[in-house]
Amino acid sequence: PSSIRLAVIPGDGIGVEVTAEALKVLQAALPQDVKVEGTEYDLGARRYHATGETLPDEVLAELKGYDAILLGAIGDPSVPSGVLERGLLLKLRFAFDHHVNLRPSRLFPGVQGPLRAPGEIDFVVVREGTEGPYTGNGGSIRQGTEHEVATEVSLNTAYGIERVVRDAFARAQARPRKKLTLVHKTNVLVFAGSLWSRVFTAVAAEFPEVATDYLHVDAATIFLATQPERFDVIVTDNLFGDIITDLAAAVTGGIGLAASGNLDVTGTFPSMFEPVHGSAPDIAGQGKADPTAAVLSAALLLDHLGRTKALPALSEAARAIEAAVESDLAERVADPTPRTTSEIGDALAAKAAA
Amino acid sequence: PSSIRLAVIPGDGIGVEVTAEALKVLQAALPQDVKVEGTEYDLGARRYHATGETLPDEVLAELKGYDAILLGAIGDPSVPSGVLERGLLLKLRFAFDHHVNLRPSRLFPGVQGPLRAPGEIDFVVVREGTEGPYTGNGGSIRQGTEHEVATEVSLNTAYGIERVVRDAFARAQARPRKKLTLVHKTNVLVFAGSLWSRVFTAVAAEFPEVATDYLHVDAATIFLATQPERFDVIVTDNLFGDIITDLAAAVTGGIGLAASGNLDVTGTFPSMFEPVHGSAPDIAGQGKADPTAAVLSAALLLDHLGRTKALPALSEAARAIEAAVESDLAERVADPTPRTTSEIGDALAAKAAA
Ligand SMILES: CC(C)[C@H](C(=O)O)[C@@H](O)C(=O)O
Ligand SMILES: CC(C)[C@H](C(=O)O)[C@@H](O)C(=O)O
Repeated sequence: PSSIRLAVIPGDGIGVEVTAEALKVLQAALPQDVKVEGTEYDLGARRYHATGETLPDEVLAELKGYDAILLGAIGDPSVPSGVLERGLLLKLRFAFDHHVNLRPSRLFPGVQGPLRAPGEIDFVVVREGTEGPYTGNGGSIRQGTEHEVATEVSLNTAYGIERVVRDAFARAQARPRKKLTLVHKTNVLVFAGSLWSRVFTAVAAEFPEVATDYLHVDAATIFLATQPERFDVIVTDNLFGDIITDLAAAVTGGIGLAASGNLDVTGTFPSMFEPVHGSAPDIAGQGKADPTAAVLSAALLLDHLGRTKALPALSEAARAIEAAVESDLAERVADPTPRTTSEIGDALAAKAAA
Repeated sequence: PSSIRLAVIPGDGIGVEVTAEALKVLQAALPQDVKVEGTEYDLGARRYHATGETLPDEVLAELKGYDAILLGAIGDPSVPSGVLERGLLLKLRFAFDHHVNLRPSRLFPGVQGPLRAPGEIDFVVVREGTEGPYTGNGGSIRQGTEHEVATEVSLNTAYGIERVVRDAFARAQARPRKKLTLVHKTNVLVFAGSLWSRVFTAVAAEFPEVATDYLHVDAATIFLATQPERFDVIVTDNLFGDIITDLAAAVTGGIGLAASGNLDVTGTFPSMFEPVHGSAPDIAGQGKADPTAAVLSAALLLDHLGRTKALPALSEAARAIEAAVESDLAERVADPTPRTTSEIGDALAAKAAA
């Protein structure tokens, strides 16, 4: 008998709806003797408007005590762009040292993506999560005048790159195809590019079984649109990872299906799991959102805790959820009648039930 | 009777082959009384290996005297990555203040792109060409140690943004749909993002007929893969423009068809025209390269000179080349027998002939 303690941040818009379904499915997939204790945190646009807070220090301190965080979606047009993203989402990623931003992309059987003739798409992007152009390191002078100059600084460290590259190699090593592609823009961003390349080459020596290659980020988008089946594991910088994972989600059936994990693989801080999609205020509260991406994020959460806490029951539950999603998506081909958010959640919970 | 003086830089790999065809078609499309004087410059990998030079100062000074530059492709695996890109291609773009990097994307009738159900795709990306993360502004300390730190600085100025944004608005204004989309990552890159947004909003006031919207670069890749027909004109930063134009080329039939112009719209310096594709060393010298992107780049060149020199005959020749390409691509549907580079060039020249 064991228990997992989750902090749940439903957030804004459809985040609330999809998180409820993700928890429903997660609970159904676990054996009776695993207790899930979920504590909800009211963070996001509502709280910001009520109190001006995005992520108070005491909440951050509390969150640190959980096994993992399940997050729905953050953001609302009523809040100036970037305030919640940086004050809450990125703050959590940085405060909890989420250096491995894991984004699997799989074209499930039966799912119609936008590509005419997709092969078998099943790859995972390991996006660096704590460096690059995301550190808020920039500034401007002469604001509002015709002489304004603004900078953005991308920060890259051997330490930060090595840990994420090593994680990506280990993941590639554990997969059947054992392929790792580095994506960067080394021919233009020569300082960061050189560091990424050298670290990549050095770590590669420790993984002789893993086949490696390199693509410039612009070329990578071409391959994602024309030959996504060529990819197995991709490792890349924070910003390039942001860009190519949205594209990867699009070619595998849309961000309605894309899950992600923000991992501190050392286990010092709780890892955080969230769908790649946003809060979609236009369809919020109408039961129209597809909870699949949130449900798959819950599966990533269970898989992560299963490994780090050595609890095989959790990993098995993760597999059961993925199988439930696969079966549900295949059934949509036969019967494409639209269902509500909770109808999809119910169906997935029934299929995943332990 | 008039004449145009072109500097021709065939460059490396297939650059040599496609440039020859582009010149052939360009010449065929012009009326007899327009003389084309093309002077070839040997720059690229061969010259680099022979002399160590990428772009000598005296060559740069000479190039300044031409009406325009036609470039094939630069780069070879025998040269360390980035050396020719930065020492030649980017050096030309920066030295000649090519602030408007123009990249039209059109799905020609009959062309099979990777998308299952593409609508009518016809948009143009106006990529800033002289700022952003492309300025070589970065550095590193403790190279080669586990404490190495590398930075890349994105430089953005009100001056540089305003001129390219204004150019993009003018282009949108002149098109039937009159739509302009700003692509950036304002929620993360807040200093540069805020400057881009404010300049965009200010210039928009001068173009009340142009409908505007904004997309984060990650979301833009989703739309490019799923609803590219939604775009009319896009204006964006140097790096985001690099990334999304390769994707745009992919969804409109591949970089074998994608043309580009690097414009100094003030006319102080010669503008430069080049296919988006690279030197493709794997197929170089075999007559396998499709010269269409180079030919369309020559059409952009003629169109540009037609406008800036008020020579309608050049703009008409540009239209004739585009019509020739459209007709040739449609014929490939009926007869997909592969042709050599020069067979395609001959066919295009015959169709475009004045
Ligand atoms: C909301 C935004 C800050 C975030 C990012 O850029 O990382 C999002 O796009 C994502 O990919 O999770
Ligand atoms: C070769 C490289 C420096 C160049 C760029 O990044 O601009 C290329 O990708 C392009 O798009 O013209």
